[in-house]
Amino acid sequence: TIVALIKEHFSQERPLAGKKVLVTAGPTRERIDPVRYLSNFSSGKMGYAIAGEAAKLGADVTLVTGPSALPIPPNVQAVSVESAQEMLEAVLSRYDSVDAVIKTAAVADYRPKTVHGEKMKKQADELVIELERTTDILKTLGMRKRQQVLVGFAAETTNVAEYAAGKLESKNLDMIVANDVTKAGAGFGTDTNIVTMYKRDGTSIPLPMLSKQEVARSLLAEVQGLLNGGHV
Amino acid sequence: TIVALIKEHFSQERPLAGKKVLVTAGPTRERIDPVRYLSNFSSGKMGYAIAGEAAKLGADVTLVTGPSALPIPPNVQAVSVESAQEMLEAVLSRYDSVDAVIKTAAVADYRPKTVHGEKMKKQADELVIELERTTDILKTLGMRKRQQVLVGFAAETTNVAEYAAGKLESKNLDMIVANDVTKAGAGFGTDTNIVTMYKRDGTSIPLPMLSKQEVARSLLAEVQGLLNGGHV
Repeated sequence: TIVALIKEHFSQERPLAGKKVLVTAGPTRERIDPVRYLSNFSSGKMGYAIAGEAAKLGADVTLVTGPSALPIPPNVQAVSVESAQEMLEAVLSRYDSVDAVIKTAAVADYRPKTVHGEKMKKQADELVIELERTTDILKTLGMRKRQQVLVGFAAETTNVAEYAAGKLESKNLDMIVANDVTKAGAGFGTDTNIVTMYKRDGTSIPLPMLSKQEVARSLLAEVQGLLNGGHV
Repeated sequence: TIVALIKEHFSQERPLAGKKVLVTAGPTRERIDPVRYLSNFSSGKMGYAIAGEAAKLGADVTLVTGPSALPIPPNVQAVSVESAQEMLEAVLSRYDSVDAVIKTAAVADYRPKTVHGEKMKKQADELVIELERTTDILKTLGMRKRQQVLVGFAAETTNVAEYAAGKLESKNLDMIVANDVTKAGAGFGTDTNIVTMYKRDGTSIPLPMLSKQEVARSLLAEVQGLLNGGHV
């Protein structure tokens, strides 16, 4: 029928229509006192690109984002957070209702044990900041996984492949996207990325240097496959 | 004569013509490893406003700036730096030739003792970062002061007035601009500021809540006076 043909046409152009995709992006900031914080060099570009491309493919996209100077892509619902704890809460409160989570955020692994209420004065020549672990968001999601396709990123500087494979297993992910942030054209702040996608079935897909938009499209094609086919 | 009248007219509109003004702005970032850093919430707005207004008043303006998302104001020469050490070097190399330095930058007081060449893995439940003092840029400038008018900022959360007076003396400044960053409408990231200017002659000038542009103009009027009159 004509209706079926039209439906097929639109489903090809909007293959993620009807799917709820949650993307996390950017760095987190962990406060030391009212003016100082710990953070990292994540610009948010990879996550914002994925959120924007997923929306173009028809998905219902929520972008949980740490501090970033980037504009929110069209048709994306943004939730701004600052710390790892705020990001955890924002993601968990939405987790049950989503079909896929793509975690690009560079979440702080450690936060200061004590957050000083007043600006710390400079007195001593030396100072130590005591840190404690934050909750591992991806691992938490992996443990609670039901229908969700779960995709992680690994920004490493050494033994990228080995580390990615371990993380895929230990965090119960469906796919991990690994990059070596020390390579020119890969990683934080750049407009391009060089990644390898590792899937739970043992296959790996190395991509050449691509724009972050192109990486996003390749990644979302895999996510689409995982959403339609079986995944662990 | 007509020439004298024209000269007077233009000198009123461009009272800082012929003066070299160096402004520092923004936060610094102190690297912990290739992806993590320590920083602070300075947006750079106050310093960028001063640089822009000083250029409008005819000054030859150099803006030494830490990481900031703000656009460089027209007719301002910008020098981008990341760490406290880079800012120190950028300022010192220009210090001898300038007439005034206005230090709004929120320079890190401490930096990690060790910068790891590779991304630190999360292993232990707890971690300490050992910090050491950075060089106090303003104090260094105060010790080496000759012709320069030296203006500092104090972003404090307690005992603002007392701390400002002490800093004025100990760092050999001509003026210090103090604000309480805990007040609504003052401090980091806001478009307004509430400051008191303390001068070396014992006078203090409290300003109401003003836009950072208006604060910049009030401050530069005082700097103009210090450049023309005697200063310590």
